Amino acid sequence: MSELQKILKELIGLTESDWEVFRNKLKRKEFKAKTPLVSEGNISKNIYFIESGLLRTYHLLDGNEINTYFACDNQIISTFSSFIRQTASVEILETIEDSIVQELSFQNLTQLYKESVKFEKLGRILAEQNYLCVLDRTYMMQTKTAKEKYLDFLSTYDKKIVEGVPQHHVASFLGIAPESLSRVRKKIAAT
Amino acid sequence: MSELQKILKELIGLTESDWEVFRNKLKRKEFKAKTPLVSEGNISKNIYFIESGLLRTYHLLDGNEINTYFACDNQIISTFSSFIRQTASVEILETIEDSIVQELSFQNLTQLYKESVKFEKLGRILAEQNYLCVLDRTYMMQTKTAKEKYLDFLSTYDKKIVEGVPQHHVASFLGIAPESLSRVRKKIAAT
Repeated sequence: MSELQKILKELIGLTESDWEVFRNKLKRKEFKAKTPLVSEGNISKNIYFIESGLLRTYHLLDGNEINTYFACDNQIISTFSSFIRQTASVEILETIEDSIVQELSFQNLTQLYKESVKFEKLGRILAEQNYLCVLDRTYMMQTKTAKEKYLDFLSTYDKKIVEGVPQHHVASFLGIAPESLSRVRKKIAAT
Repeated sequence: MSELQKILKELIGLTESDWEVFRNKLKRKEFKAKTPLVSEGNISKNIYFIESGLLRTYHLLDGNEINTYFACDNQIISTFSSFIRQTASVEILETIEDSIVQELSFQNLTQLYKESVKFEKLGRILAEQNYLCVLDRTYMMQTKTAKEKYLDFLSTYDKKIVEGVPQHHVASFLGIAPESLSRVRKKIAAT
């Protein structure tokens, strides 16, 4: 049983026959590091179940890249607002490292919704998780100090993300200057 | 047919018999203006379908009220993260004017998910709408000028909200100082 099948069995009670239906909707793809899967201004056609690798979403603000999400092995990533609205994306989705993903298209997901209540449940959980993720990040940005933000990041995110994401990406994700992040990291290392 | 029934028929294809199931899960309640329906630190037990009235959600930041959402007749409001996680709310949900709502509890919504794929779809749409709402507000806060924010507010929100929500609540919702909002309103009125 693949990791994805295990996760979906746990999450929505997927049976073997549900899995067969689901599996036939996926396309396995390999991407080199720093490949954009969704570009700014394009409609996001897919969500990605990550088999292995490291990816990020970001948008541009006054020419600077503002990172909004990181994901790695056995996690899900998309530019979700463009995906559910099927309108041009303001976000960019890009690999940080070489990655292998299972791609699920909007059309196929919409089709799955009609096939079983389990897939509607999957859609609900995806939307809830995206909601909580953006809400938690917004709240963190508004209320925490640089040190608190970084400690939160260390305790919340997967080791592969903490170790693999370049520090300047982490800084923009946390809404702090790269120099502040560097100072915070030194202070934490010294304690 | 009530307005709520019409909306749900449109949104998820609710039949007469689905409506009977749904209707029996609701509790109709009336609240005076400035009544908290969810307090900070309490678990949000319900979402509210608004029959009539005007409500807001907000959180406290350094003793100041930061408004995060407004809703009126035939709209839905909740402190959604506390509701879906069933954990203590950082947000407060309060009536601005006297309001009549149909209350749907977490237990009853979870029960509905099991009864029909249509209610799972409703759950998905609720989550997607909450996601888009918080994402759009975050993006607006980061990228727009005070004037653009207010013009967006005028074009996006219901007339009842634009006219009924006190200006200092609108200012914190848009992330601008009350004096800036006042200046912007004067400039717009003069053009």
